[in-house]
Order: sequence, then C-alpha cells, then structure tokens
Amino acid sequence: MIYCGETIQPAFSPANRGLNYGDGLFETLRVHVGELPLWPRHLARLREGAGRLGITLPDADFLEARIDGMIAGEEAGVLKLLVTRGDGGRGYAAAAAMEPVWQLSLHPLPPAQTSLRLGWCETRLAIQPRLAGIKHCNRLEQVLARAEIDRVGCDEGLMRDGEGRVVGATAANLLAFRQGRWLTPPVERCGVAGVLRGVLLEAGLVDVAEMTVADVETAEALALCNAVRGILQVGQLGERRFRSHPDLYGLQMALSMRYPMFSTPGESA
Amino acid sequence: MIYCGETIQPAFSPANRGLNYGDGLFETLRVHVGELPLWPRHLARLREGAGRLGITLPDADFLEARIDGMIAGEEAGVLKLLVTRGDGGRGYAAAAAMEPVWQLSLHPLPPAQTSLRLGWCETRLAIQPRLAGIKHCNRLEQVLARAEIDRVGCDEGLMRDGEGRVVGATAANLLAFRQGRWLTPPVERCGVAGVLRGVLLEAGLVDVAEMTVADVETAEALALCNAVRGILQVGQLGERRFRSHPDLYGLQMALSMRYPMFSTPGESA
Repeated sequence: MIYCGETIQPAFSPANRGLNYGDGLFETLRVHVGELPLWPRHLARLREGAGRLGITLPDADFLEARIDGMIAGEEAGVLKLLVTRGDGGRGYAAAAAMEPVWQLSLHPLPPAQTSLRLGWCETRLAIQPRLAGIKHCNRLEQVLARAEIDRVGCDEGLMRDGEGRVVGATAANLLAFRQGRWLTPPVERCGVAGVLRGVLLEAGLVDVAEMTVADVETAEALALCNAVRGILQVGQLGERRFRSHPDLYGLQMALSMRYPMFSTPGESA
Repeated sequence: MIYCGETIQPAFSPANRGLNYGDGLFETLRVHVGELPLWPRHLARLREGAGRLGITLPDADFLEARIDGMIAGEEAGVLKLLVTRGDGGRGYAAAAAMEPVWQLSLHPLPPAQTSLRLGWCETRLAIQPRLAGIKHCNRLEQVLARAEIDRVGCDEGLMRDGEGRVVGATAANLLAFRQGRWLTPPVERCGVAGVLRGVLLEAGLVDVAEMTVADVETAEALALCNAVRGILQVGQLGERRFRSHPDLYGLQMALSMRYPMFSTPGESA
C-alpha cells in the first residue's frame, strides 16, 4: 500500500525522491502474532533519521492504524515501512514542506539458518557521521558488499570502514565475545544502529567497543543480530571455525525471555 | 516513459531497487535542436557506472531510438535518463541477471543565472573510491548540502571531503583560476566526473589539481560547470566577491566554439 501523506496512491511517481536519490528511510520489522513487539524502537530510529534528513513522517496515529490493519492475524512475518521525502523539487533541492510518500508491505520471514558462514567484504563503508546510525535508503555500499558475499558463497559479510575499523555485517550488527564480554562496534561514523543491538546494549548484555580485524578473528565466539532474525550464531569466518559457545546460548536465552518471538531459532533465524 | 528492459511499464514497482536502495544510475543531458551533443560522453559515464555497480544497461540501439523519439523537434531542454538495477532480490542481494527498469523524462532548461553566489556546505562528501566519479543514485549528501544552501539563500554550495579537500559544488564541478591556469579538483575519492569537466580536461583547457579551502578562496576567478548549464561565473563565495575575469570569458568562448549550445549564457546558464 502506497500513501502520499494520508491518501492512498496507486503507484510511486517517476519524480519520487526515493527513486531518484535514495532520499528516504526504511524500517524492517518482525511481525509476531499480529503485533510488532519492537515497534517503539523502530519508530524512535525512524524519527531520528527524519530529524537528521529533514524528512516529514506520516502522522504516527495514522501510520499505526494502517500497520495494525495490515498485520492483524499474521502469525509471523516481516513488515517493511519505506518513507520517502516525497515527489519533485528542483534537482537535489526539495521543497520546504513536502508531503511524504510512503509504503507498507508484508513479507514472509527469511529462511532459518542455524550457523552462518561469513567472509570479509572488500567494499568499505565510507565515514559519514551525518548519515551514520540511521536507516536511510542510500545503500549502494551494502549492495556491492552483498554481491561480493554471494560470489564467494558465504551467508553474510563483515564490513570495515574506510580506515579499517570493523563496523558490522551488510544487514546485521556484529557481536564478538572477548574476555568474558559481548562487544559490538560503534556506529557513529558509519553503519546502522540496529534495533536489536539497542535492546542488547540497554539491557547491559553487550557493550560498545572499537574492533580491528584481528580482534574479530581472535574472538571466542561471534554472532550477528538484527530485528528480524534475532541473534544468529557465526560458525565460520574465512578459514576460522567457531564452535557453539555457552555464552552465546546464554545471550540468546536472555533475549528470548524479553522477546519470546526470538525463542525458536529454527523459525526465527 | 518507464521501461523494463524493452517493455513499457505503467509505473515503478514498489520492489524497485532504485526506490528501496538508490540502486541505480542517472544522466541529465542538455537537448539542443533535437539532438544531444554530449551523448557519447554521457553514455560512456553510464557504462563506467554500470560496470562498477554490476547493473545491466538497456540495449544502446533501443535506448537511442527511444531518446530520438522523445527529443525530436525539441529546441532546448533537459533529458533525464534514470536506470535502476531492476525489481526485487532478497534484501540487498540482487539476482544475478536483472532486467533493468529505466525511465526517460524531458524537462525545461533551468532558469538563466549570470553570476552565482556560493557558500561552503557543512555537509562533507564521504571518501568512497568505489562510488566516486560515477553518477549513481545515492545522493543524500547532495540533498543535505543543497538544503543548507537554500537555508542561507545562496545559488550553489561548495563541498569538501571528509578530510577537508575541496571536491566541487552539489550539482556542478568547480573551476578555479590560479597562476594562469584553470584547475578542477580530482574525483577519484568522491564527487562526480562531470561530462563537461571531461570535455574541458581533454581539450587541455583545464587541469586537475588538489585544492584546499584557502586555494579556492584566493583564486583569481571561480566558475562552475555542468553538462546542462555550461560554464557559469561565480560572483561571490562567502564574503569574497569575484569580478568578471577575461580568462573566464576566454574559457566560455573556447567551449562555445566546440558546443554552440553553450554560446548563449542568457539561455543556457
């Protein structure tokens, strides 16, 4: 369903700024028994992004009513919300107050994966603090990195920034277990502040720490996390293999107690 | 007109990758008496971008026939070609061979401007060699920079990279006259390799040189160039005013002799 403000539109305009410049934001949310358990956190990130980019969001009550209508009765799935700045403008210049053009779509959960095989991506994430953390639609770096990973037959890829610091995977945050603590890289220079990463940080289950390639490769255990798939075990990174680790099981359990939708790795992963 | 491969489509799909990730390329071309005098150069840049991003381009003969039909009889205008990778895929992952979804649209020439007032943008261009030079659709940096310029009432803004080097304007390349030579910054780390910049470099009228903010502010003359508006005089940058400079006139004349469409600044600027 596509809307301009609160009006249904049959399609996106050729002048849509999302289409022309990636001038928009998106959220990908896990649906669980007709609800979006992480909705407040997704909305908070969306508002942060809209504030930084100067994009007007649809009215929250209107948006939530449309979402409720769409996910009612859905046992499990993925809801994608895409909010573009709107249509038109003069080149890169937008009009002062544009009506946002946005879309809701429902998708099946991705297939289950129990242990991921990762590789390092050659494509780096450019350092851009103004766009870091938020979930905007300028994703060519991730598209290029993902293509690398598909070529070598891995499940996901780890990305570094332009100066060599580890940032995360193409579509998930990285968790590394080192010296008795779960750590995840900062996302102030580049990368996305994942909603599930936020849950784990606020619960005190994970801490932020800078990481080099060597730090990651010598970790005791690795995992990826995102708001759709929960916490996924990493079984291999390059040549290094990682065994099941009791502390990873502990972390998954702690998350499941807060969000039961992540309690069945077979389905959720 | 929107096409998927060689088939007309009524609209862009909600799953279009340009819309979702800015996963595409574009060219903005000056139409002159039913022709596109710079077409071969635009096509070459498009091919460079398609090669780097792994995007399939529409068949060149088919594309050129559609363009001819659209611009026949048009005295002057701007043709925009947008080529997205296509529709769908699994998240950032695209299918191996996607049919490109692309669009041609015709627009009026922008209003004439004889002397531009510029400001410095706070928004920096992130250093990303894999995306530098090509005209891809990840343009949030330019959108943010353009909004800054609109807020302060300037005509255009100059952008620096993340390390402080001057790169160019939001939608044009920069030309600075220093010590008897016209210079333009390199675009290997970020920025766009403008088609008109390419014309001027190949003609030996301009040379590439790194530039600091001080280099630009102390230049004898400044100009911007792009393939739609030609060479535009800069009259002011911040507090510094620039007078008409005989060497700028000389550069504009040299260009007009090669491309007469740029000979009438009143119309073309």
